[in-house]
Amino acid sequence: MTGKQIAFNGPGLAMEMLEASIPELKAGEILIRNLYTTLCGSDLHTYSGKRIELCPTILGHEIVGEIVKLSGDHPGVDHAGRPLTRGSMITWSIFSSDPESHYAVNGIPQKGDNLFKYGHALLTDKEVFHGGLAEYCILKAGTCILKIPDHLPLPVAATINCAIATVAGSIRLAGDLQHKNVVIFGMGMLGLTCAAMCKEAGASWIGAADVHQKRLNDALSFGATETILLSDGDDSLSKDITENFSRKGADVVFDMSGSPEAMETGLDMLAIGGIAVWIGAVFKNRKLQIDAEKIIRRVLTIKGLHNYNYEDFVYALEFISANWQQYPFEQTIEKEFDLDSVDEAFQYALKHKPLRVGIRI
Amino acid sequence: MTGKQIAFNGPGLAMEMLEASIPELKAGEILIRNLYTTLCGSDLHTYSGKRIELCPTILGHEIVGEIVKLSGDHPGVDHAGRPLTRGSMITWSIFSSDPESHYAVNGIPQKGDNLFKYGHALLTDKEVFHGGLAEYCILKAGTCILKIPDHLPLPVAATINCAIATVAGSIRLAGDLQHKNVVIFGMGMLGLTCAAMCKEAGASWIGAADVHQKRLNDALSFGATETILLSDGDDSLSKDITENFSRKGADVVFDMSGSPEAMETGLDMLAIGGIAVWIGAVFKNRKLQIDAEKIIRRVLTIKGLHNYNYEDFVYALEFISANWQQYPFEQTIEKEFDLDSVDEAFQYALKHKPLRVGIRI
Repeated sequence: MTGKQIAFNGPGLAMEMLEASIPELKAGEILIRNLYTTLCGSDLHTYSGKRIELCPTILGHEIVGEIVKLSGDHPGVDHAGRPLTRGSMITWSIFSSDPESHYAVNGIPQKGDNLFKYGHALLTDKEVFHGGLAEYCILKAGTCILKIPDHLPLPVAATINCAIATVAGSIRLAGDLQHKNVVIFGMGMLGLTCAAMCKEAGASWIGAADVHQKRLNDALSFGATETILLSDGDDSLSKDITENFSRKGADVVFDMSGSPEAMETGLDMLAIGGIAVWIGAVFKNRKLQIDAEKIIRRVLTIKGLHNYNYEDFVYALEFISANWQQYPFEQTIEKEFDLDSVDEAFQYALKHKPLRVGIRI
Repeated sequence: MTGKQIAFNGPGLAMEMLEASIPELKAGEILIRNLYTTLCGSDLHTYSGKRIELCPTILGHEIVGEIVKLSGDHPGVDHAGRPLTRGSMITWSIFSSDPESHYAVNGIPQKGDNLFKYGHALLTDKEVFHGGLAEYCILKAGTCILKIPDHLPLPVAATINCAIATVAGSIRLAGDLQHKNVVIFGMGMLGLTCAAMCKEAGASWIGAADVHQKRLNDALSFGATETILLSDGDDSLSKDITENFSRKGADVVFDMSGSPEAMETGLDMLAIGGIAVWIGAVFKNRKLQIDAEKIIRRVLTIKGLHNYNYEDFVYALEFISANWQQYPFEQTIEKEFDLDSVDEAFQYALKHKPLRVGIRI
C-alpha cells in the first residue's frame, strides 16, 4: 500500500510529489487518510524562508482526516473516551509527547519528553507521512485525538488543531473574561477567533487592532465591538479609547500579531491588574523595551504561550462545534486547491494574504 | 493633647521636630501610639532625593504601635475578628482604601479608590500624624488592622507591614513552591525574607543572588541553599547552576533588586513554564530588553507586584509569628536610634547600608 506525499525541499525550491510505501504501524499508532489541510502562517514562513526547518519535510499541520487503521494495541478511544473505529473523523494535537513526563503532567504537554510535531519533521526513508500535505498521516502514541461531529465542514475542522486550539490556550491564560474590556492585536485567523471566543466568554468590550483596514472589516462579524486602525508610530487612538474605560485601560490585551510595537502598545493600554497574553511572536524580531517599574506599580502580568495543552484542544473543538455558524468561520478559507497544486496554493497565500487557503485531499 | 512628629522638608534639608495637636478622630479612625519604626529602602530613596514626595511629609511606614483610642463608630475588631481595645498592639496595612471599590474587591486593595498611604502623605494643618516618625499615628477607615502576638519583638513586628507583607505577595504570585527550584535576586530585607518563605513553602533549592558578598553571607541563615555572586556583565555562574537542574532552569525567579540586569538574567534562567515575579523595581531605571519569542516558546509568565493585599498581610503576620526565631529576623535591625536622632539614623543607613535601622519611639 502506497500514498502520495509532497516534500518541501527548501525555500525557493519546487515542491516534490513522492509516492511512498505506508509502513507497518508501531505500538499505539493510527493510520489516517488526510481529508483537508489548511495552510497556517508558520507554513508560509517556512515556505518563504522566514522560518528554517530541516528539509526535506512534509508541511501542513492544520489537518483533519479519517481513521484507516488502528494499531493492534491502541485503546480504541479518543481523549474524551469516545470509540474510534475505521472511518472515524478526527482532529489531533499538532504534537505527540510522553504524557507521563514532567511538563505533560504539569499542563504543558506541548513541551513534554519525546516531543514530535506534525508538519515539521524531517522526511526520511523510515519517517514518512507525518504532515498534512500528503494522502496519509501516521499518528504516534502520545497524540491527543478528538472525534469531530459529522456536521462540521472539513475546511473549518482543519483549523481546530492549530489556530483555534492556540487561541483557546490564550483564553485560558486570560482567565475570567466576563464583563472585561479586551483588546486584540492582529486580526488574522488567530485574532478573529480570539474575538469570537472573548465574545462567547462574556467580554463586555472587544477592540480589534490591526495595521490593515481589510483585516479590521472582518473583525466586526467575529464579535469585535470596535476596530482600531494602527498606524506605525501612532497608538494615540487606542489609548484614547481605553482612557474612556472606568478602569482607564483594558483588562486583557492579546497579541496575535507578533509585532514588538503592538506588544509594547498593549502593555501601555492595560488597566491596573491587567493581563497581556502573547502568542504571536514565534519568529525572530527586535527585543521589546519594557518598563519594569510600570509592570510592578500597575500590578501587570505577561503570559506567553506556544501551542496549547489538551484542555485547550478540547475547548477548541467544543467552541467550534457550537459556534462555527454564529461567526463566519467558513469564510476564513478563502480559496481551495488540491494536492497537485500545492506550490500554487503557497504562492497564492503569500501574494494575496487570505486568512487561510485550503488543500482538499 | 499634643504629640511630636518629625517633618521631612526635602532632600538635603534637616528633619524638623514639630509638636502638633492631635485632632478629633473621624468616623472609623483609630489613634495609635507608635512604638517602633524601621526605615525601609523607599524611605532612604526619599531622604536622598532618588524618590520625590510632596513635602513636608512624615516618613516611616514600617511601624508597630498600640491603640490609644478607637473612634466611637469603629467596629472594635481587627481584620481577623479579634477584639481591639486600648493598649492592643497592632500592625496595619501601609495603605487605606475603599474596600468596596473595584480593585479592592478584586484582590488589589492597594490600588483601591480613595487610596491613602502612611509615611508618604503631605503634612498640613489638618492632615497630621500619618507616618512612623512621630509619637502618634491616626489610622483611617479602610486600613487593614491585625493584632500582633505579645511575644513578638517590636523591631521585628515593625517590618511586617511593608517588607514582610510585600514578599508574602510575591510568594502568592509564585504559586505552589513545593519541590521547586527558585532563584532570588537581591539579598536585602526582601530577598532574605523571600528565601525564608520559599524554604517554609517547600522549595527544594533556593539560590540567593547578589552583587555584594556581604549580603550573600546572610542568605544561608535565611534558608538559601546556595549563593550566587553576580558580577556586572557576567551571569555565567547562575546559568551553570540552572543547567544542572533536570528542567534546565529555575521554576521561579524573584527580583527584589530592581536591577534591569538581574531581571533580564532571571528570565534567561527560567525553565519552560517558569514564573518571574518582580517587586524590586519601584524607581526609574533603563528599560528591559525582552525577547518576546522566548517568553512565548518557553511558556513563561512575568508578574509584577506593588505593595500587597489583605491576604498577603495576614500571611506575613502568620509567617513572622511562626518563624521569627527560626531565621535571624531580629538581627536584620542592625542599629537603633531614637526619635530625636532621626537624621543620624538616615545618614547611618545610607552610609553603612544595614538591612534595617530601627527608631524606638
